[in-house]
Amino acid sequence: MIMEKGISSVEVLPSKSSQVTAVKVVVKEPETKQTQRGKRVGFVLVHAGAGYHSESKAKEYKHVCKRACQKAIEKLQAGALATDAVTAALIELEDSPFTNAGLGSNLNLLGEIECDASIMDGKSLNFGAVGALSGIKNPVSVANRLLCEGQKGKLSAGRIPPCFLVGEGAYRWAVDHGIPACPPGIMATRFSLAAFKRNKRKLELAEKVETDLIQLKKRRQSNEKAALYGCGCWAENTGAHSPYSTAVSTSGCGEHLVRTILARECSCALQTEDAHQALLETMQNKFIGSPFLANEDGVLGGVIVLRSCRYSSEPESSQEKRTLLVEFLWSHTTESMCVGYMSAQDGKAKTHISRLPPGAVAGQSVAIEGGVCRLESPES
Amino acid sequence: MIMEKGISSVEVLPSKSSQVTAVKVVVKEPETKQTQRGKRVGFVLVHAGAGYHSESKAKEYKHVCKRACQKAIEKLQAGALATDAVTAALIELEDSPFTNAGLGSNLNLLGEIECDASIMDGKSLNFGAVGALSGIKNPVSVANRLLCEGQKGKLSAGRIPPCFLVGEGAYRWAVDHGIPACPPGIMATRFSLAAFKRNKRKLELAEKVETDLIQLKKRRQSNEKAALYGCGCWAENTGAHSPYSTAVSTSGCGEHLVRTILARECSCALQTEDAHQALLETMQNKFIGSPFLANEDGVLGGVIVLRSCRYSSEPESSQEKRTLLVEFLWSHTTESMCVGYMSAQDGKAKTHISRLPPGAVAGQSVAIEGGVCRLESPES
Repeated sequence: MIMEKGISSVEVLPSKSSQVTAVKVVVKEPETKQTQRGKRVGFVLVHAGAGYHSESKAKEYKHVCKRACQKAIEKLQAGALATDAVTAALIELEDSPFTNAGLGSNLNLLGEIECDASIMDGKSLNFGAVGALSGIKNPVSVANRLLCEGQKGKLSAGRIPPCFLVGEGAYRWAVDHGIPACPPGIMATRFSLAAFKRNKRKLELAEKVETDLIQLKKRRQSNEKAALYGCGCWAENTGAHSPYSTAVSTSGCGEHLVRTILARECSCALQTEDAHQALLETMQNKFIGSPFLANEDGVLGGVIVLRSCRYSSEPESSQEKRTLLVEFLWSHTTESMCVGYMSAQDGKAKTHISRLPPGAVAGQSVAIEGGVCRLESPES
Repeated sequence: MIMEKGISSVEVLPSKSSQVTAVKVVVKEPETKQTQRGKRVGFVLVHAGAGYHSESKAKEYKHVCKRACQKAIEKLQAGALATDAVTAALIELEDSPFTNAGLGSNLNLLGEIECDASIMDGKSLNFGAVGALSGIKNPVSVANRLLCEGQKGKLSAGRIPPCFLVGEGAYRWAVDHGIPACPPGIMATRFSLAAFKRNKRKLELAEKVETDLIQLKKRRQSNEKAALYGCGCWAENTGAHSPYSTAVSTSGCGEHLVRTILARECSCALQTEDAHQALLETMQNKFIGSPFLANEDGVLGGVIVLRSCRYSSEPESSQEKRTLLVEFLWSHTTESMCVGYMSAQDGKAKTHISRLPPGAVAGQSVAIEGGVCRLESPES
C-alpha cells in the first residue's frame, strides 16, 4: 500500500464558531473478497466535527478518531457490512464526551439533549436517519436499523417502511425495535452542562440588551436541525453513469449544510477527473458562494470525502483490475476540522487536526487537504 | 391573455394508492408593478394531492382547489407577497376535510394527527418547513413564519435562525411566536377517523396473518415523513445561470419523493428549452426509473410545475420585454391528481382531475398535462 499525502490550503482564521459540531464517519468497502491473510480490503475516514478544536483538547479529539477508525476496521476484518462498520465507528464517536454527538452533545434551549444521525449505503442507495431524538444513547444505531429494516421491503398491509423518523416517533420506533431507552439526564456531561450554562447566560444577556433596545420578545425555540437527506451524508457506488464510487460526510452549521444540500453536491462534483479541484470548486462556488446563502456573513462547514476506482498499472493487461485507488480529502471553512483515517492493511489509524492558515477568515475561506491510498487485491 | 391547453398523456391505471396524499400550492409573482387597473400580474397553480380521487368526491376536490386559487389571487391583488398568497391558498386546502393536510389529515398509528408543511421563496431562496407537527391548525402558517423570521437575520447572541423544525420543538416555536394552539382532537374528521379505523383493522388483520406465519413482532411506529428540503417544494427565480424562473410542488409517497429529491430535480430539469419534455424525462428517468428506488415495485407521486420567462413578440424591439410567458404543467404516476389554476386577469379558477388512461399501471406509468399562459404587462 502506498500513501501519498498532499496538503494544499487556500487562504483562510479564528472565528466565533465555538465547538465540535457533528460527528460522522464514512467507510468504503471496495472488496468483498478475503485477502490471502484472511483480511478484507477496506478504508475508513472519520471526522470529529468541523468547528473549533482547542489545542488543550487536541489529544482527546484525535484519540477518539483513532478509536473510531480502529473499531470500523476491526468490524470489516470480522466480515461485517460496511454500514455496520460505520455504525461501530460512530458509536465510538457518540460515546465520547468530546464530540457534539450522543453523550455530551450540546443541549437545546430547554436544557434537553436531542440528537441527529444519518447513514447511507452506496451499494443499495438505502438511507436511514433520525432527527431530534431524545432518550436513546446511540442515535446512529436507530439510523442503521431504519436502513436495515428499509431493505426488507414493505411492512404489513403494504405500508412503505420509513427511512427518516423524528422526535417522539423516532424514540417509539427505536424502543419497539428493541433498542434500549436511556434516561436523557445520562447524556449530559460536565462539559456540555457548563457550555449550556455559559451559552444561556450569554443569551440572556444578549436578549436583555435587545429587549432594552428594541423591545424584542424573548425567543425560546428549540434548535432542532434534522439529519436531512443529501445534506449530512451521501454514498453512491460506481454505476453506469458514475465511474467513481463516492462517500461524503459533512459537519458544521446545519442550516448552511441543508440549504446547499452539500453532501450530495460534493458527491456529484466528484464524478469529474480531478477530485481535489472538484471539491475545492464545490466549497467555493456551491457553499461559500452559494446563492442560497447570499445573505449570510459567513458560511460554516466542513466535509470529508472518499472516492475510489479500480485501475490497472498495466493498461494492456487483459487481467481484472486488481488495484483500488482510494482518494481521501477533507475541506472546511471553519477554523478547524479533526479527521482520522485507516486502511485494513494498516496497523493503526492516522489522525490530524486541519486548521485554516493564520490570517484567513473562517466562514469566508476554504482549507483543503487529502491523500491517495492504493489498495492491492490479493492474487487469486 | 391567451390560454393554450395541451394534453398529452403517456401510457398508464388503477392502483392501491388510497387517498389524497398531500396538499401544496405554488404562486408565481412575476410582476411587482401594478397594472393599469391597479391589479397585479400573477398566476397560481395548486394541487389537492397525487393519489386517488373518487368520482363521488370529485366536486369537493375541485371546489377546494378553486377556492384556494381565488384566495391566492385576492391576496396578490391586494398587494401581498407571493409567499403570503401561497399561505392563504394553503390554509384553504388545509382547512378542507377532503385533503390530507391540516384538518382531516390521515392519523398516525397512535391515532394522532401530525402535519408537515413547507414553503420556499424563489426571490430570496429562503425556505421554511415543519414536520410531524401536532396541535396547530394550519402548519403552513408556521412554515411561512419560519421563512419570514429567517429573512430577519441572526437571533440574539449570534444564533442562526432555524428554517426547519419538527415535533414538540416546532409546536413550542409556533406558540412562542403567537400562533394559536389547537387541541389535536379538533383536527380529526368523521372521514379521517373512519379511514383510521379501517386501516387499523386492515393492519391488525395483516399482522395477525404475518404473526401466525413468521412470528413477526407487531410493528407500531409512527409514520413521520418530514417536509424535507428539495423534496416537497422548490422555487428559484431567474438568475445568471437560469433563464427561467421555476416553482415546483410535489405530492405522493413521502419516501419516494425524498429519495429522489424530486422537487429540486424537476426545477433543475426545467432550465432546458422544452419544459414538457424535460418534466416527462425527469418523471421517467429520475422518478420511476430512479436507481434510488430500484427495489420498489411502484413509484407513486405527482408534481405541479410553473415556469416563466419574459419575451418580446418583436425581437428587434429595444423596449423592455413586456410579455411574461407562464408554462404550467402537472405530471403523476398515481391514479389521479387534482389541480387548479388561475391568473390575476381571470374571473375564476379552472380545476381538473387528471387521471391515468385506462390500462396504464399506477406506479409504473406517467401522465403529463399542461398549458401556456401569456401575461401582458401594462403600457408604462
